[in-house]
Amino acid sequence: MSVAAYSVPDRVVIRDVGPRDGLQGESPVVPRERARLVLALAEAGVRRVEAVSLVSPKAVPSMAGAEEVLAEIGRPPGLTITALVPNLKGAQLALGAGVDEITVTVAVSPTYNERNVRMTIDESVSAIGAICELAASERVPVDAVVSCAFGSPYEGDVASEEVRDLVRRLKDAGAEAITLADTTGMATPRILADVLAAVGTDVGLHMHETRGTGLLNCFRAMEIGVSRFDTSVGGLGGSPFAEGSAGNVSTEDLVALLDDLGVETGIDLGRLLSASALAERLVGHSLPSRVAYAGARLGRR
Amino acid sequence: MSVAAYSVPDRVVIRDVGPRDGLQGESPVVPRERARLVLALAEAGVRRVEAVSLVSPKAVPSMAGAEEVLAEIGRPPGLTITALVPNLKGAQLALGAGVDEITVTVAVSPTYNERNVRMTIDESVSAIGAICELAASERVPVDAVVSCAFGSPYEGDVASEEVRDLVRRLKDAGAEAITLADTTGMATPRILADVLAAVGTDVGLHMHETRGTGLLNCFRAMEIGVSRFDTSVGGLGGSPFAEGSAGNVSTEDLVALLDDLGVETGIDLGRLLSASALAERLVGHSLPSRVAYAGARLGRR
Repeated sequence: MSVAAYSVPDRVVIRDVGPRDGLQGESPVVPRERARLVLALAEAGVRRVEAVSLVSPKAVPSMAGAEEVLAEIGRPPGLTITALVPNLKGAQLALGAGVDEITVTVAVSPTYNERNVRMTIDESVSAIGAICELAASERVPVDAVVSCAFGSPYEGDVASEEVRDLVRRLKDAGAEAITLADTTGMATPRILADVLAAVGTDVGLHMHETRGTGLLNCFRAMEIGVSRFDTSVGGLGGSPFAEGSAGNVSTEDLVALLDDLGVETGIDLGRLLSASALAERLVGHSLPSRVAYAGARLGRR
Repeated sequence: MSVAAYSVPDRVVIRDVGPRDGLQGESPVVPRERARLVLALAEAGVRRVEAVSLVSPKAVPSMAGAEEVLAEIGRPPGLTITALVPNLKGAQLALGAGVDEITVTVAVSPTYNERNVRMTIDESVSAIGAICELAASERVPVDAVVSCAFGSPYEGDVASEEVRDLVRRLKDAGAEAITLADTTGMATPRILADVLAAVGTDVGLHMHETRGTGLLNCFRAMEIGVSRFDTSVGGLGGSPFAEGSAGNVSTEDLVALLDDLGVETGIDLGRLLSASALAERLVGHSLPSRVAYAGARLGRR
């Protein structure tokens, strides 16, 4: 009998956001150790890492010392270093430290945006425009990450036209790349298909395992034609306070799947598991990644 | 733009194996409470439950008191009660207690079968034949569950022809239904497609989240045409000793996904979450289900 075929890209680009998005919600880890984690990821073959956030140390103590982290990392060959910036001042600091890429965020959910960054969506888009202008003057690309792109914890489903319109405004504001984030794990294959039909497949995806659908959504997105994914080593970024909770899709869970499907990532799973073990030691508790616990499946006979 | 469409069945049948497969690895829960869990699942709309195992209480203390469990459950309307039996004596006890369905297991992995039931595969098939003969005399169907159908922790990949051949032998031995189990979470969409191409889609699937791919594999299987799934309330059946470990796909994680996709299960997610909370209280530790922790996603606007 024949079975429905699936079709995935030959290769995908993985950006590990663990050192920034993952560690942000943890007790502070010293800059030297955060740099060590970035370097361990680079040694595993990860070519893009969101390494720091240029936020106020008072507002986010866990992200203090971004410039020290960047100085410790240095310039490993082939590694694209990304910094999240919340405003123009952060962008100036990031550009001064020589980052390769800047990420900015805005939520398609008005309530989430207000609560997360205390700005209206219009104010966020305007601030992003100023950041893009500054970054362009130094030829550094800006990736605008759209939060709550597949649903809002406040407003529920989000119309795909709203996501499309916000993406257009962000491109008009100067964003070179767009990433759609499933901030609270509300995406499903139905919603994913709707949003990608409206926005197109030239986007990165940042999916969450909050409801266990992260890997499924990554797989479906690959079938639709997406080939850029944000993931987090160890699944760093779930709440450390609740056993069983989960946030970011774990890098090793996605890499283990892609290895089996023959999708190239350039990442060595064994070395990645070493980086994951380091991440676990740095935060001092176990991480939600399944493959970090179970190990890779036995290979083909 | 158009996106690749997906196709899932209008409805699927879920058999909850939590009260048996899930509780088997836990500290013993008294029969009255195990029956309570089965009844809570029935109240949530679960129509098939693997409720007990008729094994030696010395070998598996957590499964002692199967007949008490069955007596406590009684005969709720619309509920199909399944018992796992390891041998002819267990089948006699199960039939005497009036179960609606019998499950038996055999692994396609010779090493796993030896270690799990201390029999060769030939010996297991022969024992299953005797159980099927006895069950047929009482018109009770036998579902043969094939362990390690998507890979063995000992031998690695399993040739799909081996699975097909074992399935044929089990049908010849009198099994009315076949379930393929991903015992240690080694299935991927690639392997799933291979095995279903060899065996056909008239099978149940019992997938695991050991490597985080359980929901993905269930979704892919639905696309290929499978419509019967074994899941476990709360994801009961992961090792309780290791945070982050996971076993059975959790019933509520699958139901939440199917609700969004418009696939009917007959199960009410809210009541199912109550049954899951009960399961968590009975075992005294948190369970790996993501939806049990995060709750259902907010509905459509």
